[in-house]
Amino acid sequence: MLVSELETPAVVVDLDVMERNLSRMTEYCRRQGIALRPHTKSHKIPDLARRQIESGAIGITVAKIGEAEVMLDSGITDILIAYPLVGRGKATRVAELAERADITVSLDSLEAARTISEQVTARNVKVGILAELDVGFGRCGVANEKELLMLAEQISVLPGLEFRGLMFFPGQFVVGPTERSALLGDVNDLLGRTQEAFERAGWPLATVSGGSTPTAYDAHKFLGVNEVRPGMYIFNDRNMAGIGVAGVEDCALSVIVTVVSNSVAGRVIVDGGSKTFSSDRYLAGDRCGFGLVKEDPDAELETLSEEHGHLNIRDSMHRYRIGERLSVIPNHVCSTVNMHDEIYGVRGERVETVWSVAGRGKVR
Amino acid sequence: MLVSELETPAVVVDLDVMERNLSRMTEYCRRQGIALRPHTKSHKIPDLARRQIESGAIGITVAKIGEAEVMLDSGITDILIAYPLVGRGKATRVAELAERADITVSLDSLEAARTISEQVTARNVKVGILAELDVGFGRCGVANEKELLMLAEQISVLPGLEFRGLMFFPGQFVVGPTERSALLGDVNDLLGRTQEAFERAGWPLATVSGGSTPTAYDAHKFLGVNEVRPGMYIFNDRNMAGIGVAGVEDCALSVIVTVVSNSVAGRVIVDGGSKTFSSDRYLAGDRCGFGLVKEDPDAELETLSEEHGHLNIRDSMHRYRIGERLSVIPNHVCSTVNMHDEIYGVRGERVETVWSVAGRGKVR
Repeated sequence: MLVSELETPAVVVDLDVMERNLSRMTEYCRRQGIALRPHTKSHKIPDLARRQIESGAIGITVAKIGEAEVMLDSGITDILIAYPLVGRGKATRVAELAERADITVSLDSLEAARTISEQVTARNVKVGILAELDVGFGRCGVANEKELLMLAEQISVLPGLEFRGLMFFPGQFVVGPTERSALLGDVNDLLGRTQEAFERAGWPLATVSGGSTPTAYDAHKFLGVNEVRPGMYIFNDRNMAGIGVAGVEDCALSVIVTVVSNSVAGRVIVDGGSKTFSSDRYLAGDRCGFGLVKEDPDAELETLSEEHGHLNIRDSMHRYRIGERLSVIPNHVCSTVNMHDEIYGVRGERVETVWSVAGRGKVR
Repeated sequence: MLVSELETPAVVVDLDVMERNLSRMTEYCRRQGIALRPHTKSHKIPDLARRQIESGAIGITVAKIGEAEVMLDSGITDILIAYPLVGRGKATRVAELAERADITVSLDSLEAARTISEQVTARNVKVGILAELDVGFGRCGVANEKELLMLAEQISVLPGLEFRGLMFFPGQFVVGPTERSALLGDVNDLLGRTQEAFERAGWPLATVSGGSTPTAYDAHKFLGVNEVRPGMYIFNDRNMAGIGVAGVEDCALSVIVTVVSNSVAGRVIVDGGSKTFSSDRYLAGDRCGFGLVKEDPDAELETLSEEHGHLNIRDSMHRYRIGERLSVIPNHVCSTVNMHDEIYGVRGERVETVWSVAGRGKVR
């Protein structure tokens, strides 16, 4: 099948670009001696997770147990669930997974650790734990080295849990290169103090897991980081291009849409809206718009209804006709992929693969 | 099963409230002599569409052919696809649907009409057409009565198409009551001129299809409107409450989440983010936040990561503990439901129904 034969809206991945993105990250991590544990929330496709493993990743990261279950069913056996799992139901499912694979969970509370400990002990299995440190994003994670050491000590005496080190998520680094550099000092102060505290306690941290796509290629600048968890790098998106982490030519994923109306002056309507792209905002520059129209950068995907994309064409010289197809790079690939039951892998004009987004909707 | 036993995040619908919402709209339409054709994009659940029909709706509205296919498979036989369908592939599927049901399509271009005409003629079936008029939202629809009359004339000579009237979408009415009243004059001027033009042409409009939830209970104030297409009214949401179209007590749908982290001062994290709620913004008041926490209106669901909801609790007196469950009314129900493979119908504490969101992901 040809790309031009796909019904729209259709999410397509340029396989050449995707493979280049994968190789580049693998090569960087190998050169730096940093373990690569990609976050599969960006694609939720077992086949792509396996390709990441085959090209050198030590395992994968997921956000939810349901995603871990899908990945494990496809044969992936080293999974970090980078999410504080709370409650007996979730702890039971983690224990069940741990019977079949090497499972690590990140958390920041004794409550979460205790429940998991109870359930894995009941099944006579073991789960690895990364204690989460807040390095300034203010989402999850304890505040400093003292609290982390205390949490690690509490974890280490709970049966069935194996303390494996620290994890952090530098979410505040979704900004331009200058701001990213400026943020590094504070993070490294905290990382340095934390690693010293553990060393003084005679307990050096085996794993220091950092990074996401915006910081991945700077991973070697973060003190002691020996594992990274980038997700978006496999596809990249308008946000990553906007903050200078990738070029537009590195964006492997786009959404093919069709012009369905040109009745209103200064505007055309395409057949993808928030239920195709997601409503995720642009986080760089003027923070406006929902995607980059590859064929016409002067057109702005200004507003999204649920199924309509409103293209402002006042600054464009192009005369749009009904039925015309456009390729749009979305703001945020993770959210876009998550809207779809299947997406297409294409090479040139040929559709090479149809992937089922098997981890989609696994919110629990 | 009890609501308290559901794993979170879980989307639950209070059936008593939903049934009250359904009856109220049915009763209003009956009293006003206006046909009710609910937009099922808000739930995408065949069972709920059937309940709407059973309680007096004349048929349903959908946005995409894939949704129509799901609804038709469940036995619903009068469907308006309120979307300009463009291209041969879509026209072929419409023709196939028209072999099994009474299908109407809205459109605003001769190109769209021609392709549908070709395909339905090839199958010897008929499709109804509503010509779309732009009443000020500036999305789809021709600009005025002259253009609409011309389009209607073009449609009427195409074989296989039956011109059934006009459709409009008053998307600009998602504002407070005063602003809504102020907008009505211009819309009625245009509707009046249009109906006169068709009458002068000896061709009175059989259907004048208006309305969405924000304007549904004002449908009788729109000149000549004899059909409405509200969607959200079945559940309502924070946006509808924010613009005064529904009370908070009329919001039938909420998302149950669990507190998974309270490590960071002034903040707690719950286990639902943009992949649970969607990133749709609040369109009223201060335009901030992503949901209303029913148990604690002083807490603000300030930011969403993909799987984390960031609750700002600086103004709250409540002391949050890990494992605690909260119910959150989302900004936009249509987008929230669209994130989930299944949602739950509950009565009091009892889970009465599990619905599969069968139309979810049918973007084509």
